[in-house]
Amino acid sequence: MAGSDRRKRATPAAPGPAVVLVNPQLGENIGVAARAMMNCGLADLRLVSPRDGWPNDKAVAAASGADSLLEAAELFGSASRAVADLNYVLATTARERYMAKPVLTARAAARVLREKAAKGVKCGVLFGPERAGLVNDDLALADALIQIPLNPGFSSLNLGQAVLLVGYEWFQAADATPGVQQRYGQSQPAAKEKLDNFFLMLERELDECGFLRVLPKRASMVRNIRNMFQRAGLSEQEVRTLHGMVACLTEWRNMPGETSTPVRHRRDRRKPPKPA
Amino acid sequence: MAGSDRRKRATPAAPGPAVVLVNPQLGENIGVAARAMMNCGLADLRLVSPRDGWPNDKAVAAASGADSLLEAAELFGSASRAVADLNYVLATTARERYMAKPVLTARAAARVLREKAAKGVKCGVLFGPERAGLVNDDLALADALIQIPLNPGFSSLNLGQAVLLVGYEWFQAADATPGVQQRYGQSQPAAKEKLDNFFLMLERELDECGFLRVLPKRASMVRNIRNMFQRAGLSEQEVRTLHGMVACLTEWRNMPGETSTPVRHRRDRRKPPKPA
Repeated sequence: MAGSDRRKRATPAAPGPAVVLVNPQLGENIGVAARAMMNCGLADLRLVSPRDGWPNDKAVAAASGADSLLEAAELFGSASRAVADLNYVLATTARERYMAKPVLTARAAARVLREKAAKGVKCGVLFGPERAGLVNDDLALADALIQIPLNPGFSSLNLGQAVLLVGYEWFQAADATPGVQQRYGQSQPAAKEKLDNFFLMLERELDECGFLRVLPKRASMVRNIRNMFQRAGLSEQEVRTLHGMVACLTEWRNMPGETSTPVRHRRDRRKPPKPA
Repeated sequence: MAGSDRRKRATPAAPGPAVVLVNPQLGENIGVAARAMMNCGLADLRLVSPRDGWPNDKAVAAASGADSLLEAAELFGSASRAVADLNYVLATTARERYMAKPVLTARAAARVLREKAAKGVKCGVLFGPERAGLVNDDLALADALIQIPLNPGFSSLNLGQAVLLVGYEWFQAADATPGVQQRYGQSQPAAKEKLDNFFLMLERELDECGFLRVLPKRASMVRNIRNMFQRAGLSEQEVRTLHGMVACLTEWRNMPGETSTPVRHRRDRRKPPKPA
């Protein structure tokens, strides 16, 4: 999915959790994680002994514009140093760890992190190295674990994907976008009067051409046709377009010199008489 | 996040939406998308004219074990051919498109897709090429758009990340994992009687050593100490461990030959008398 408007600002920054990457292996993954953080309005990136050194050109290439996060990233020698100033720490894990700790879904974790942040509690989330995840000593630093519900037969996530899902839930937890919005482009939803005018015109034409000729069925057919167009939630512009379409489709019949006799047979309707 | 248990099965497969990648550019991204699909229990991958040809070794390398999805992927010459057998199609877009279509969040889209799937409606989701996203003619194939709420100043997602978020929401929409679970490892939450025995032992020792010597404050201090341990939600095993810890810490005082006089001064407590 491409496109973002850099003139727009992120939502006013609640202090997001620090993202602590413990012994990340590939620079690319650090870059992808930074990009995912920026997607989600997170800014505090902390790196614990990245395997391939720091700074890392591959991280910059993979960050796709989230360079500022990489430049501001802090380096630490151990996970415990990286979380030393934090008050509440979560650790991500895909495996069952048999640790006596609360285990949160990413969604529940986001709610907790939002609540803590609102009270000024400094929060962070630990992510382990690509191959094996966090070691138990790192997990022991955490107040609780995050285990993201995923296909139990294939739950291993790429580092950047894990950061994205935690960040995504953090962003959603304070996002007020309605689940469904009807967009009308530059136009407005049509006023019912305009829609009714179109229906009357359409039904007149359908009477004329004989489509509604079976009188006992006419009322229900008209209702069905009206429902079909109602369901589309038409805009003003779209009602004008439909008006024009029907006018154009019936023009040949309404031309001077043509009979206004209803066309009663399918064959007749398919092959309009050529204008003289 | 590493680790997944391949002996476990995915949740019983509701027929997930087809994932249609339209003109994907990099093989790596197709592989990452396939891995994300498998993470989320999705299986129907469709490719519309991948730029670098098909099959693609880089896709296999990036799929990290989701090869079966790549092998089963179907190739199409156009997006309209790829969705020909589907009844309900969503299209992802990061940009505002000014199209007169409903726009759904990923979460709302997942609910709609689950409802449709439950009724046997065949669904699919279109994803555009990395650089520019779907063209308007592809969007016109869709019943509605998905726009994932993200940092409006940096909303552009990697193809694999976009597939992951849509798949993640699809999976969550039917997942029943409780938001918070207290895990006790191999042990059970302690019965209150065991906890109370520990408290009584601890308080006896704290009386002995003089920690609770200020009688007017004793009751509230005891309450605070009990609350602190209660809050930890201790397991049977942990209560045994605490018992052992306190017993061990106080052993020197309870040894034969030592006076059982309460130690009333800080200095005394810091420097236990050497055993004879």
